[in-house]
Amino acid sequence: MSIRIIATGGTFDKEYDELAGKLGFAESHMPDVLERARLTIEVKLEVRNLIDSLDMVDQDRAEILQSCLNSAERAIVIIHGTDTMRETAQVLGAAKMDKVVVLTGAMIPYQIANSDAFFNLGFACGVVQLLPAGVYVAMNGRVFPWNDVKKDKSVGVFINQA
Amino acid sequence: MSIRIIATGGTFDKEYDELAGKLGFAESHMPDVLERARLTIEVKLEVRNLIDSLDMVDQDRAEILQSCLNSAERAIVIIHGTDTMRETAQVLGAAKMDKVVVLTGAMIPYQIANSDAFFNLGFACGVVQLLPAGVYVAMNGRVFPWNDVKKDKSVGVFINQA
Amino acid sequence: MSIRIIATGGTFDKEYDELAGKLGFAESHMPDVLERARLTIEVKLEVRNLIDSLDMVDQDRAEILQSCLNSAERAIVIIHGTDTMRETAQVLGAAKMDKVVVLTGAMIPYQIANSDAFFNLGFACGVVQLLPAGVYVAMNGRVFPWNDVKKDKSVGVFINQA
Amino acid sequence: MSIRIIATGGTFDKEYDELAGKLGFAESHMPDVLERARLTIEVKLEVRNLIDSLDMVDQDRAEILQSCLNSAERAIVIIHGTDTMRETAQVLGAAKMDKVVVLTGAMIPYQIANSDAFFNLGFACGVVQLLPAGVYVAMNGRVFPWNDVKKDKSVGVFINQA
Repeated sequence: MSIRIIATGGTFDKEYDELAGKLGFAESHMPDVLERARLTIEVKLEVRNLIDSLDMVDQDRAEILQSCLNSAERAIVIIHGTDTMRETAQVLGAAKMDKVVVLTGAMIPYQIANSDAFFNLGFACGVVQLLPAGVYVAMNGRVFPWNDVKKDKSVGVFINQA
Repeated sequence: MSIRIIATGGTFDKEYDELAGKLGFAESHMPDVLERARLTIEVKLEVRNLIDSLDMVDQDRAEILQSCLNSAERAIVIIHGTDTMRETAQVLGAAKMDKVVVLTGAMIPYQIANSDAFFNLGFACGVVQLLPAGVYVAMNGRVFPWNDVKKDKSVGVFINQA
Repeated sequence: MSIRIIATGGTFDKEYDELAGKLGFAESHMPDVLERARLTIEVKLEVRNLIDSLDMVDQDRAEILQSCLNSAERAIVIIHGTDTMRETAQVLGAAKMDKVVVLTGAMIPYQIANSDAFFNLGFACGVVQLLPAGVYVAMNGRVFPWNDVKKDKSVGVFINQA
Repeated sequence: MSIRIIATGGTFDKEYDELAGKLGFAESHMPDVLERARLTIEVKLEVRNLIDSLDMVDQDRAEILQSCLNSAERAIVIIHGTDTMRETAQVLGAAKMDKVVVLTGAMIPYQIANSDAFFNLGFACGVVQLLPAGVYVAMNGRVFPWNDVKKDKSVGVFINQA
């Protein structure tokens, strides 16, 4: 079993810029994160341009889809901002790939106290190995199919769409 | 879906005793850990007597088995020391329960920098929802069946037994 | 020896608001911070309205001055944003109090990895006990008199004014 | 102003050995700690053989004294285990050097949650710049002269000796 992890930024990977005095993006924390996870499965890390998912445009989603299509690994975890995770999942889900794609992210950046990031990554790395082909969102300890998920922004959790 | 989490201690839950100057057990960190994970699935936490798994005796394993048998939840995650995780898995596996039992733990305590604990818990909470009935060890980003796993203590990772 | 600590907010006390997705202020972290410091000297904590020091107006500084004047403790540490720490120091310095007032803060919030906050607080709590009456800025492991300090925003360190 | 920091080990610098399953010493964390502190004063770090202060013998203390005597810097901070900090302070104090020597340490290792280490280092780096020549213990937010300090091991705090 080998997994591709595609880092796209989002809250998970945000970092405090001490000169600007606000959160932004620098280097991805994923190499450190993965070393800390002590994985013995093969992991291929692909760090894309790190952005806030609110800034993602169609072109970004097309490129993420292309990364999935190009992936030699059948199991793919995508680190993504939560605000438009559903939109990207829809683009990927419509492509009907014969791969397992799990999108996850974080409500609190990995670098900040009380972050859920590391748990969510572990959860995603687990379910991606067992789910049937398809596109899923994995947040709050739950697996959602790409076409039945939304973020309830009033409380900051993912729920079914209906 | 609801999950039972049984905390038995192990490295995961160890805490520094600043008067004794060494690691031991106090209150379980699991309530804080679970809150941080922001789970929306139902979780039933059962905190047992927290001990080092090297100190576990047959009676402890019999009681953990009884906890599994008594569990109203079909999906069970057990937080366990790594040194004898395999031995407990064998006791549970031999019972052939119609439940999914996933044992996990940590190489570094949750409270110490660079700990894998939170990732491992996320991983276990994911796979326990998808695996068929059986007993498994989930460590290093891999799922092992209870009867084909051992800890390679020279490098601190879990591998297949053969 | 007893110390008054006046928390005014600033980067030191900022917290990630996971619903808004940005840093702001909630409860002060100072009670936790002080417990962690294991002080046996008497500390009187005064938590004022927590704000970004860029949002401070004359009225805020007048109130901080009044807090210093009212302080029963001769040694006062003020937790303050770095961007206008100098301006507040000037207001306090001009008042020529017979007290020792040390302003400190942080380049990275206490809650974020790699924060200097806890070091700076320790530094300030040390020097406030030894300095002669006056108003000082304590940052980067240095003590600056209130009328000879500025923040070099291009590199994020405090230097002499000249 | 420049400071020499002499790292001797102690609880401050202990690290979890994940293969042995207990706390020990590896590389000193002091280079990382000092970078995080964002000091602009000149700091000369001297990392000695890192040991538990309960394992210190006369020869170790003689060597620490020699390091102080050799120090080109007049201000010296020594990172030391708390259990025999007083004994080392007495050896250094009896030497009546014309230098300022401040011993500090931690009740909880720097790498473990809720550690006081970083605060204590900040405190020590502050007072060492202001104290008159002599040997001091700086713990719990207080400065103790070398000949009037002891650790109350029942509660884990430093107090006057009398």
